[in-house]
Amino acid sequence: MSDDLKLSRRAVLAGSAAAAAGTLATQARAEGDPLITEVQEWASGLGEGVDATPYGLPIEFEADVVRRNVPWLTADPISSINFTPIHALDGTITPQGCAFERHHSGAIELRKEDYRLMINGLGVSPLVFTYADLERFPRENHVYFCECAANTGMEWAGAQLNGAQFTHGMIHNMEYTGIPLRTLLNEAGYDGATEGRWVYVEGADASSNGRSIPMEKALDDVLVAFKANGEALRKEHGYPVRLVVPGWEGNMWIKWLRRIEVTDAAVESREETSKYTDTLADGTSRKWTWVMDAKSVVTSPSPQAPITHGPGPLVITGMAWSGHGRITRVDVSKDGGITWETARLGRTQGDTKALTRFYLDTEWDGSEMLLQSRAMDETGYVQPTKAQLREVRGLNSVYHNNCIQTWHVNTDGSAENVEVS
Amino acid sequence: MSDDLKLSRRAVLAGSAAAAAGTLATQARAEGDPLITEVQEWASGLGEGVDATPYGLPIEFEADVVRRNVPWLTADPISSINFTPIHALDGTITPQGCAFERHHSGAIELRKEDYRLMINGLGVSPLVFTYADLERFPRENHVYFCECAANTGMEWAGAQLNGAQFTHGMIHNMEYTGIPLRTLLNEAGYDGATEGRWVYVEGADASSNGRSIPMEKALDDVLVAFKANGEALRKEHGYPVRLVVPGWEGNMWIKWLRRIEVTDAAVESREETSKYTDTLADGTSRKWTWVMDAKSVVTSPSPQAPITHGPGPLVITGMAWSGHGRITRVDVSKDGGITWETARLGRTQGDTKALTRFYLDTEWDGSEMLLQSRAMDETGYVQPTKAQLREVRGLNSVYHNNCIQTWHVNTDGSAENVEVS
Repeated sequence: MSDDLKLSRRAVLAGSAAAAAGTLATQARAEGDPLITEVQEWASGLGEGVDATPYGLPIEFEADVVRRNVPWLTADPISSINFTPIHALDGTITPQGCAFERHHSGAIELRKEDYRLMINGLGVSPLVFTYADLERFPRENHVYFCECAANTGMEWAGAQLNGAQFTHGMIHNMEYTGIPLRTLLNEAGYDGATEGRWVYVEGADASSNGRSIPMEKALDDVLVAFKANGEALRKEHGYPVRLVVPGWEGNMWIKWLRRIEVTDAAVESREETSKYTDTLADGTSRKWTWVMDAKSVVTSPSPQAPITHGPGPLVITGMAWSGHGRITRVDVSKDGGITWETARLGRTQGDTKALTRFYLDTEWDGSEMLLQSRAMDETGYVQPTKAQLREVRGLNSVYHNNCIQTWHVNTDGSAENVEVS
Repeated sequence: MSDDLKLSRRAVLAGSAAAAAGTLATQARAEGDPLITEVQEWASGLGEGVDATPYGLPIEFEADVVRRNVPWLTADPISSINFTPIHALDGTITPQGCAFERHHSGAIELRKEDYRLMINGLGVSPLVFTYADLERFPRENHVYFCECAANTGMEWAGAQLNGAQFTHGMIHNMEYTGIPLRTLLNEAGYDGATEGRWVYVEGADASSNGRSIPMEKALDDVLVAFKANGEALRKEHGYPVRLVVPGWEGNMWIKWLRRIEVTDAAVESREETSKYTDTLADGTSRKWTWVMDAKSVVTSPSPQAPITHGPGPLVITGMAWSGHGRITRVDVSKDGGITWETARLGRTQGDTKALTRFYLDTEWDGSEMLLQSRAMDETGYVQPTKAQLREVRGLNSVYHNNCIQTWHVNTDGSAENVEVS
């Protein structure tokens, strides 16, 4: 075996400036490091028994990996938006405990026993389902991302929030178990031969958050869901039942789902007129901008996840998603979009409208970087630059900003949110 | 639209004895049910803000969906086994918070800063990795099940534990992020041209729980993992780093992974001789029984998840898995294995050595059932009956019981653990 060969990468790990010394340092640790040579307290006795946490929480050392809000972002009497700590996560699944929240009148407590779901409207017999009724219908499992339409909204006006959690953290990705909405519409007698071309969906909270969904989507992949990542939905995600509208903006994923009305036209509710429409440069608005276009972000390194080592091997990672289907490719740039390298995609076993993890296993030379990622989806769509997006959409909107994000990485490994022209 | 058509299933939902009345009851609720007709307290004001739970827990109404132990099962000074509440879960992902624990000297607290992983032995240069070092190697994401070899072990002697959580709950299924072990072995210079044919792996806890793994497996799909379901491993699952040995018994998935030694032969440690070998009827033992064979269990209905409604539509669900690869088919019997119906499989997007959810959407006629499920995997292997397994393996073992499980469902919907001859 060649010593040169076997030491090559290890040497680089210790820093490009002193390869040989680095190698020795790594090997010497075993001799001089008390964490290796001495019996530690944790190897000397009994640790904690299984009674300690019937339902467990993260270890105390991970106490910073939590949802966080930005107080000035919402003027509500109680804070109504927080953000997933995406800078500290890896893989694709978002644990419910740190999956972002967005409430329009707070998170309510609703017992399964008190839960009712009404279906009424055009061409259907009015029906009311209890939670126990819902458990008797055939159900499915799917992994989908849920992204707030306002995710990255502050970036329209410039680089204001210094962290991937805050610029891109209004997203989560879970395995949902639920009943296809078409099953319940069929149960109520909907047969397609009526004037019912939309459904209006609302929640049991004070805001009700009513939204109109075209019947074509309602009959396609919308789920009436009651489990996420295997267990019951959390209170803050709509316990006991929420709507899952794959690939479409999170505001339509009605929590504490109370009613589904078949209508002949869109209701034009508050949540789809004064809110969740996109105001353009000339003051007019785009509406029915439901689909979340392809988007990606580098989560590490990023302002909250700086590089903590010297030059040498560096894993650049992030996530990509598209409301139109599968992510087919992600490119990464270290120079603000001048040159690009194609990243390696993680698990891609067929989930559509779900987060895709990407990795660029690279060598960092220790110099500054302008890190970007650029997603492509199965429709051929390519994630736009911020300049391209502003040219079409102006600066007046807070919704549907899917532009390429830039992190400026300094020579000391720290990073900040910047714009490149 | 035909009223007969549109009411057919709804009618059945209300019970086969009074279809028309049942339909009316479902429809009348909208008129007479204050939960529908009156504005409820939770729709009248503000719910909880997002500051309430930076890291969330399940809602209080789900307080029974927790890990539970069986005090008489372990004689340790602290309880060392608990069980995943599989009867209450759906889909495939197991949340870390309720994923079973098995400790040999308790769960220890080990900071990332104090973490060291040594690789040494035949044909490698001794190396020590810090946690920060590990973060610089290319990593992968995979969903795998982890099952304790003793799962279902009490069933060898008969139907002793009345609940799927206790008979089959020493299993969980998570999305792991980690580095292929082969990457780290290569880093240490292992090139295959040595007498190193095994690795001996051990943890940082007092038990150290050392196990021998053939090099062929070590170079195949074993991961040195640091994330599960997107976030850091929990303390009780080996924070900050554990071994993931896909499809093989959980005891080999070393937690708090401390050392990997390349050896010429198996170490024949305590954990692979006096424990984790299978004692046969004649007193001799099978050893190196690493792979978890194909297995399944109905999780609902089951003793802890009784049927709470009358005759009519019933969803029978459960999970199946195989250490040899993919589940290709699951059959369900209602009559103790005399007749079988093929179940519908949930997500099957390519994950191998992972849990597969199955559903049988059926009609319950209200009579007693002897519910069973039978899994088949891509090798053609069929899950055996308890009698078949006992014939080959006797009654002396506690390990590797993958027999078909039977639940006796009574006319009132309650269920209990039974054996059928």
